[in-house]
Amino acid sequence: MFSVFSIDGGVCAPKGFYADGLYAGLKAPGKLDVAFVYSEFNASLASVFTSNHFCAAPIVHAKSLFQTKGKNGVLPCNFILVNAKNANALTGEEGLQNVNCLMQKINQQFQNLQNPIMASTGVIGVQLPTDKISSIFNKINLHKRDGAAAAQAIMTTDAYSKEIAFEIECEGKKFRIGAMCKGAGMICPSMATLLCFVTTDAALPTEDMNELLSESVEETFNTISVDGDMSTNDSVFLMSNGASGFYHKEAFRFALREVLHKLAIDIARDGEGANKLVAFEVVGAKTNEDAKKIARNLSNSLLVKTAIFGEDPNWGRIASTIGASGVECSEYSLSIFFDEVCVYERGKILFTDECEKKAAEVMQREHIKIICNLGLGEGRFKAYGCDLGYNYVKINADYRS
Amino acid sequence: MFSVFSIDGGVCAPKGFYADGLYAGLKAPGKLDVAFVYSEFNASLASVFTSNHFCAAPIVHAKSLFQTKGKNGVLPCNFILVNAKNANALTGEEGLQNVNCLMQKINQQFQNLQNPIMASTGVIGVQLPTDKISSIFNKINLHKRDGAAAAQAIMTTDAYSKEIAFEIECEGKKFRIGAMCKGAGMICPSMATLLCFVTTDAALPTEDMNELLSESVEETFNTISVDGDMSTNDSVFLMSNGASGFYHKEAFRFALREVLHKLAIDIARDGEGANKLVAFEVVGAKTNEDAKKIARNLSNSLLVKTAIFGEDPNWGRIASTIGASGVECSEYSLSIFFDEVCVYERGKILFTDECEKKAAEVMQREHIKIICNLGLGEGRFKAYGCDLGYNYVKINADYRS
Repeated sequence: MFSVFSIDGGVCAPKGFYADGLYAGLKAPGKLDVAFVYSEFNASLASVFTSNHFCAAPIVHAKSLFQTKGKNGVLPCNFILVNAKNANALTGEEGLQNVNCLMQKINQQFQNLQNPIMASTGVIGVQLPTDKISSIFNKINLHKRDGAAAAQAIMTTDAYSKEIAFEIECEGKKFRIGAMCKGAGMICPSMATLLCFVTTDAALPTEDMNELLSESVEETFNTISVDGDMSTNDSVFLMSNGASGFYHKEAFRFALREVLHKLAIDIARDGEGANKLVAFEVVGAKTNEDAKKIARNLSNSLLVKTAIFGEDPNWGRIASTIGASGVECSEYSLSIFFDEVCVYERGKILFTDECEKKAAEVMQREHIKIICNLGLGEGRFKAYGCDLGYNYVKINADYRS
Repeated sequence: MFSVFSIDGGVCAPKGFYADGLYAGLKAPGKLDVAFVYSEFNASLASVFTSNHFCAAPIVHAKSLFQTKGKNGVLPCNFILVNAKNANALTGEEGLQNVNCLMQKINQQFQNLQNPIMASTGVIGVQLPTDKISSIFNKINLHKRDGAAAAQAIMTTDAYSKEIAFEIECEGKKFRIGAMCKGAGMICPSMATLLCFVTTDAALPTEDMNELLSESVEETFNTISVDGDMSTNDSVFLMSNGASGFYHKEAFRFALREVLHKLAIDIARDGEGANKLVAFEVVGAKTNEDAKKIARNLSNSLLVKTAIFGEDPNWGRIASTIGASGVECSEYSLSIFFDEVCVYERGKILFTDECEKKAAEVMQREHIKIICNLGLGEGRFKAYGCDLGYNYVKINADYRS
């Protein structure tokens, strides 16, 4: 038994963690664009990186540290520097040298950091303005606790910043977990970069870190993203310093999953220019894999996304997308619901004028669940997506957004 | 050696073929919505149907005829009835009965038709208004030669009708080939229905029909569409009556490919609300399959499509999409061109201000070629796509478009 309380502070909520957002002149004047996350105690870092072949220079740098200085995929690391507006991807050897150079300077500025690393997001194929970034190193106050400023600084096309923190009480003891992330819209297919930083003072054994992180990412961010289709910079970090002196595996598993789930929903809802959050719940498939494939195809379908924008309960497009998925299905066992309204039931069209009116009312809601029951087995998967409207086009057609 | 001449007449250009478009009250008043294609001589029909699990009732009907009355995948058939505005898909047993009923009535109206079939396109999940359709059967003049009216009648969201015809001269002899189709935008991922009807008076041996048709579809329509991701109604038909008494396999292969290629380009260019036609040419991949995967991912990427709409030579999004494809590649052997302008060459960023200016000029063109050389082998594939702008959203968000 354990209790979970929502608290303030984001990544700074757990004991010994600090963060801030600063202005290095990468974004428009006055907008925060560089952030850091720091633990005053020695910490361990686990990570999940993009599978994009052209992963960005900061990821190449971090991966190499994980290999040379890490153990079982966990790196002794208590400092991450983050910049927005420049992805440092497709920048070759020079891009990697720029990361090395910045990390050297950070090491000179602050003695005794453990293997500091970087994370970047922004435009691809432009060399990092290292002078601008390093020029603010002397303004960094390692003991600043402003998680909100850090969450602001890492934003790109996000409509709002995203942070969260919980205190978990269990057997009379407590630990905390905090997080911030950036990312907007369905990550796939738009591939907006996802950066996520989780901090915890739970006394997390290093051997549990990768298991718990990768399992939670699979169940949360991967419901809004497809593995093979990630941006050059996607990264999820979990930094743990053990400062609470307490650990309870199931409680931590629950808390981590909850943190990442809430952030994933926040990202899906913050679709670039989107107004609606849609859960595509596929049940009754032969296997979970089948359900996953359909749920993701639905959440990625342009025709479905534009119909949602038009508040049109266009179940035909949904059925057609299911049929096109390559997954075994039959129209005679398929049923489709918009929230509580069933429009098609095991091959029968229930879409009378009255039914259509009810379904159209559902479509006006901000949160919609579209349930597709294949009626063939126990396989299920839920994916999250959003509508696609004029604002998506506006944001992404703007020159070099 | 053979010569190919562009001629008028569409599907009516070959000897013995007739077609017309009629008004049955399915579309807005006065708009043609039913068409037929008819050969006065006995004819043979080959076809390529959608792989969608929920294929429409007219396809179920036709497939069953191919099985029971066909031989080696070729059906004796000289009449196809087409309707727009209603897909007759996800309509169950009743949908199939409606096709059977209409085909019985057509057989009663016109004696001696060979296995008449139907093709439909439009809204999914609504029963076919058979009364409206059969009420115009007595207005059909089987000897009307109005290919243009037929091409008009089968349109749905198409901005313009699509027809084409060639006369092929070879060794002093001639045959003709004609075609019409409907479909708009990248078929995938928008899955707008593709219907295509090809007629020919070449003395085509039935044993060549499926080989030539499926090979040509693979090289043309499948460059704008992905097999597994087709609508419920996609169909391509080839009807041959041998009336020219002449056949030359290579000439016919060339002519058929040319006809389907031109129509496929027409469809890609007629993107729903699109302004630009983009050829994504991937070369230097390890295999053709690798090149195909990347070319299709590029032509389907929302971020790439919106950048094209914004006339932004955003090569970073292109590189990121390549990297996300799962195909083996390296940034140090990759090069990217916008038409003649190279922006990235084997790991070197050439995107200076001047280069960007030139690339931005290219992006203002109506026809753009984006060439990605992976620098790893001989694999190549070209896919066609279009931009995604406000009009796409408008067309597809309109209630039940």
